[in-house]
Amino acid sequence: MGANQKITIIGAGLCGTLLAIRLGQRGYQVELHEKRMDMRKESMSAGRSINLALSARGLMALDRVGLKEEVQKYCIPMHGRMIHPIEGAPYLSPYSGRDGDYINSVPRGGLNCILLDQTEQYENINVHFNSSCTKVDLDTAKATFKDGSTGEEIEVVSDIIIGTDGAGSVVRKSMMGQTTRLLFNYSQNFLRSGYKELSIHPSKGGGWKIEKNALHIWPRGKYMIIALPNMDGSFTLTMFHPFEGKSGFNTLNDEQLLTDFFKENYPDLLPFIPHYKEEYTANAVGTLGTIKCYPWQAYGKCLIMGDAAHAVVPFYGQGMNASFEDVRVFDDVLNEIGDGDWSKVFEKFQDLRVNNANAIADLAIDNFTEMQDKVNDPAFIKKRKLEMKLEQNYPEYYSKYSLVTFKPNMPYENAMNLGRKQDQFLVDKCREVSSIEELNLDDIMKSIMKLRE
Amino acid sequence: MGANQKITIIGAGLCGTLLAIRLGQRGYQVELHEKRMDMRKESMSAGRSINLALSARGLMALDRVGLKEEVQKYCIPMHGRMIHPIEGAPYLSPYSGRDGDYINSVPRGGLNCILLDQTEQYENINVHFNSSCTKVDLDTAKATFKDGSTGEEIEVVSDIIIGTDGAGSVVRKSMMGQTTRLLFNYSQNFLRSGYKELSIHPSKGGGWKIEKNALHIWPRGKYMIIALPNMDGSFTLTMFHPFEGKSGFNTLNDEQLLTDFFKENYPDLLPFIPHYKEEYTANAVGTLGTIKCYPWQAYGKCLIMGDAAHAVVPFYGQGMNASFEDVRVFDDVLNEIGDGDWSKVFEKFQDLRVNNANAIADLAIDNFTEMQDKVNDPAFIKKRKLEMKLEQNYPEYYSKYSLVTFKPNMPYENAMNLGRKQDQFLVDKCREVSSIEELNLDDIMKSIMKLRE
Repeated sequence: MGANQKITIIGAGLCGTLLAIRLGQRGYQVELHEKRMDMRKESMSAGRSINLALSARGLMALDRVGLKEEVQKYCIPMHGRMIHPIEGAPYLSPYSGRDGDYINSVPRGGLNCILLDQTEQYENINVHFNSSCTKVDLDTAKATFKDGSTGEEIEVVSDIIIGTDGAGSVVRKSMMGQTTRLLFNYSQNFLRSGYKELSIHPSKGGGWKIEKNALHIWPRGKYMIIALPNMDGSFTLTMFHPFEGKSGFNTLNDEQLLTDFFKENYPDLLPFIPHYKEEYTANAVGTLGTIKCYPWQAYGKCLIMGDAAHAVVPFYGQGMNASFEDVRVFDDVLNEIGDGDWSKVFEKFQDLRVNNANAIADLAIDNFTEMQDKVNDPAFIKKRKLEMKLEQNYPEYYSKYSLVTFKPNMPYENAMNLGRKQDQFLVDKCREVSSIEELNLDDIMKSIMKLRE
Repeated sequence: MGANQKITIIGAGLCGTLLAIRLGQRGYQVELHEKRMDMRKESMSAGRSINLALSARGLMALDRVGLKEEVQKYCIPMHGRMIHPIEGAPYLSPYSGRDGDYINSVPRGGLNCILLDQTEQYENINVHFNSSCTKVDLDTAKATFKDGSTGEEIEVVSDIIIGTDGAGSVVRKSMMGQTTRLLFNYSQNFLRSGYKELSIHPSKGGGWKIEKNALHIWPRGKYMIIALPNMDGSFTLTMFHPFEGKSGFNTLNDEQLLTDFFKENYPDLLPFIPHYKEEYTANAVGTLGTIKCYPWQAYGKCLIMGDAAHAVVPFYGQGMNASFEDVRVFDDVLNEIGDGDWSKVFEKFQDLRVNNANAIADLAIDNFTEMQDKVNDPAFIKKRKLEMKLEQNYPEYYSKYSLVTFKPNMPYENAMNLGRKQDQFLVDKCREVSSIEELNLDDIMKSIMKLRE
């Protein structure tokens, strides 16, 4: 199957490499081009966030290529959000009432290396590092690559090109260049907050200084810090703060203001980060943007997927999972349609994915407010407690978070629509009572089953 | 005032020329650059639609520069929509229940020429035709222009640059090039329908073959033709059709299919357009897009307004009016703040305009469905009749259409929000009765006044 078809994939990040493996397994001749050097030979650049949340959708896609177990060796389960209020003790808010439901902290670089290693198992996959795409001819599936060391430019013609070249995608920009012909819809939206990474070092004995199996949040209303555990006992912290104003990155560039701010707002975190000032000064501020577009394909010759088609903000922990799901769904479409008609394959794929990508983008924006503000809100906490009880007692109940995170067979759009309906219903119910003990769970489940219809 | 400040305006279309006049009147040194030749010396290109709807907001801005009466000489009042159903007689659906409320058909080219002529009254306004902006340095307000005849490039440094260079704005693209620094939000969205212009010729005696003082619509559900009157007795017709499918421009390229389609769908129009096949073949199909972005200014040095900042689809007849209103509001802001601090002026201006531009963009999309489909719907017709009665009997009542079109002191956003609330209320009321005669108008007005609070 597909042996006489040549597929060029642009971008050997997580999505592109997983795609290359799957298409290699299907027998295509795969040429995978990556503008960076081979990350297995170079020291990791800190350009992107260094750990990610891997959950059911991502694992399902990894399972498709046979790598689920291998990747899980590098995962640290996180069972819930450990909330660190500004006053009072930290407490765990579980992600689900079911024991088997958790998400995983996984290192971006390590995961990418596992995937790159795997490509070497297939003679029909060639990986070209230091090969930067400068131009794409959408009509003929011809891509131009510049070799980073020699400066030489080569033209590559394939049956199809798939762009998995991230939020700054060259392939997507080529499509944008044909706006009128493709009626290309596009949006980029940036939050007025950015992010900066700090860290908690391992303890002297090599262990974790704070709870290992949780995603930590210091929610402060209009800003927050979060922490994800790493295998070596460290945590990666991420500050999400506005650019401007009292808590803004542009304001806190002053050392005295920074010290005062951390003492006032993150007093409980300070003992774990004695080196925070050096890291604050050394590390760059990143932006947080959402990209949506349509169509994702041009002329049955070029397709984009992953961040190239749908960059999202990180607050639902679904960016990588959504991109991996792209690969799984693309594989499903190939199973259904075969590779005789790429236009048909690409159109079916985008029909299945665009609304779901838009949904997870919107859910991620909602979660920005939830994580930095609502998690501390009594009404929200009450609703989450009710949801835990429902999940513990009714295996068929899935909260919005669980629908998105632990139910990989439900498309994001359906999860969003059902989840929002449930949320509205449960919030209203919680408002009617002073304690959730007063609520009849059976009655609530009956109403929820009706919402599903 | 402002005599020692130099302002470069890029784009001498309707918005840029009106802006140049007003800034010239304020005493600034104005350099207005236009990439096209002087349209007063060349034959008009048919690139853009050739007549437009001018209403209260546009007239208010023209009045600000003293040109309202002059422009009105070239206007043809349109009192309502003349609906041509596929079966039965045409009927007029008035725009308002008040006699003085009407919109005007005005020729784009003629209006632009009046404005260009006016710039010659001011020694401090220089117009540079055939001068195409190739680059803008946002930090220094330096623009590079290429002379179309000599090929020579010149660099112009000013105190500020204002880009009124339309939907394809070079100034906006420069801002997009600094996405991360400006956190530049941007969206372009295209309808899956396009447009093509046809015409009804004047009658032999020089008169109008169909009702002169109306905007004609042949609504057909998923497509339509509209007609606007011209001073010479002709009408400009615009077909709004999908690109694909049975009624699609790409399908109707076949002569036999085209003939059959017009006979079946526009039988009453055919006698007026014996030459439609030639025009259909000769005229290009245009796209219909909405552009939104934020911010509209960079570093207190560059600002965009008009279509460059907010291109809209034409279905509310407000594109030009919104751009003219930009000029009027910019003038208001200068009155309030003065020109000492351009950052402050630009920020105040965008604060006042961005949400209003987004509102008229959304309203225009809504009207796409209303014009081609709903105008024929019995429930919609009932609601419009009720609104006419309200406007005839209660001078304080304004329908959504009237708020947007005839109440220039109410910002678009407020008009949209109040208008939508009113619409929902009136549609619900109409549903309760078989005839609007059963409704008590006083009670309805009381409820509507409450909605306004």
